[in-house]
Amino acid sequence: MDEILWTTPLYEFVRQCNDTSLEKTVLDCGAGCDRERAPPLFLFYQQGYKTYGIEIADDALAGAVVFIKKKKVPLNIIRGDMRRIPFGNEAFSFVYSFNAISFMTKPDIEQSMHEMERVLRPNGLCFVNFDSVDDPDRRPFRKNGFTRRLLRSKRFSHYEDNEADRYFKNFEILRKERRLIEKLYHGKRINQAYIDYIARKR
Amino acid sequence: MDEILWTTPLYEFVRQCNDTSLEKTVLDCGAGCDRERAPPLFLFYQQGYKTYGIEIADDALAGAVVFIKKKKVPLNIIRGDMRRIPFGNEAFSFVYSFNAISFMTKPDIEQSMHEMERVLRPNGLCFVNFDSVDDPDRRPFRKNGFTRRLLRSKRFSHYEDNEADRYFKNFEILRKERRLIEKLYHGKRINQAYIDYIARKR
Repeated sequence: MDEILWTTPLYEFVRQCNDTSLEKTVLDCGAGCDRERAPPLFLFYQQGYKTYGIEIADDALAGAVVFIKKKKVPLNIIRGDMRRIPFGNEAFSFVYSFNAISFMTKPDIEQSMHEMERVLRPNGLCFVNFDSVDDPDRRPFRKNGFTRRLLRSKRFSHYEDNEADRYFKNFEILRKERRLIEKLYHGKRINQAYIDYIARKR
Repeated sequence: MDEILWTTPLYEFVRQCNDTSLEKTVLDCGAGCDRERAPPLFLFYQQGYKTYGIEIADDALAGAVVFIKKKKVPLNIIRGDMRRIPFGNEAFSFVYSFNAISFMTKPDIEQSMHEMERVLRPNGLCFVNFDSVDDPDRRPFRKNGFTRRLLRSKRFSHYEDNEADRYFKNFEILRKERRLIEKLYHGKRINQAYIDYIARKR
């Protein structure tokens, strides 16, 4: 019986990946996690994919390593920067970044989107989600040197409804979903707002 | 390897159900499907639940029966009406209705919500999603005798953002999610808008 992960929108993505006839290779950009949860790549591992992941943040990388050792699953998560993905052109059938990209500035996000496109093969599928401006808890980007602290704890790029469409010029957008969430989280009511894309590279 | 279903929001629901210590019994209200897809209960069956379902529409019931016979899985889906659920009080730990309730009128939905509450045990979890007024393809309810046809093909109860909150007076709402979707469906661009609730009965 497969463990159900908390990464709900990736179930729609992996279902669409399964529906293609492409080789089952997938890259996660921002592949780490905290110590209470499974790395998102574990969902693809359960589905028989050859998985690869890169993670830049020490804590998140350590969280993934704890899981990998405990479960003895070779998820292949290494330290890496999605602004300079350490893999060749068209190396993967599937690439995604889940709840990760909004920790960067918009120029860095643009560079990362180009990199994801580069390592994805033609007809390959991509999933990326962005934080929406509808998130009431959003913090504006501050240029005051706290980037490193923000990188660890706060997301600070937020997108208008159609603003991220421009990253998908060389893709066909298969599904775009705005999600506005109110939830009870460790006893507190919190709000979240995301814009998720699933797109096929032309 | 478990088959990934198209019922994405139920992955979050089953994950929360798994996190409780309640007996794994679940009822689906509106448990049928078309002949191309798996009944949503199959997700819970994969997760080791004792499943029960009721379905009022002939076509949807037939679709589920085709799947049950082909896969040889005892999902226990019977003909039934969620306005009068044919089970006793507090019979289930978990109850849900997925993409089904908006085929009814609001008075019938209110009655069905009372029935779902009735058959759910205290501390049991409930998932229900409603069609949102933000759905651009929505059709207003027509009182002209076409109810049966509409029941088969069109949803006609649509909800404002907080309108359905009133059904959860005897629940704690754990998660509420508005989803605004644009997707490519059999070559056509379509829009959908849902409001999903996960709630715990007091």
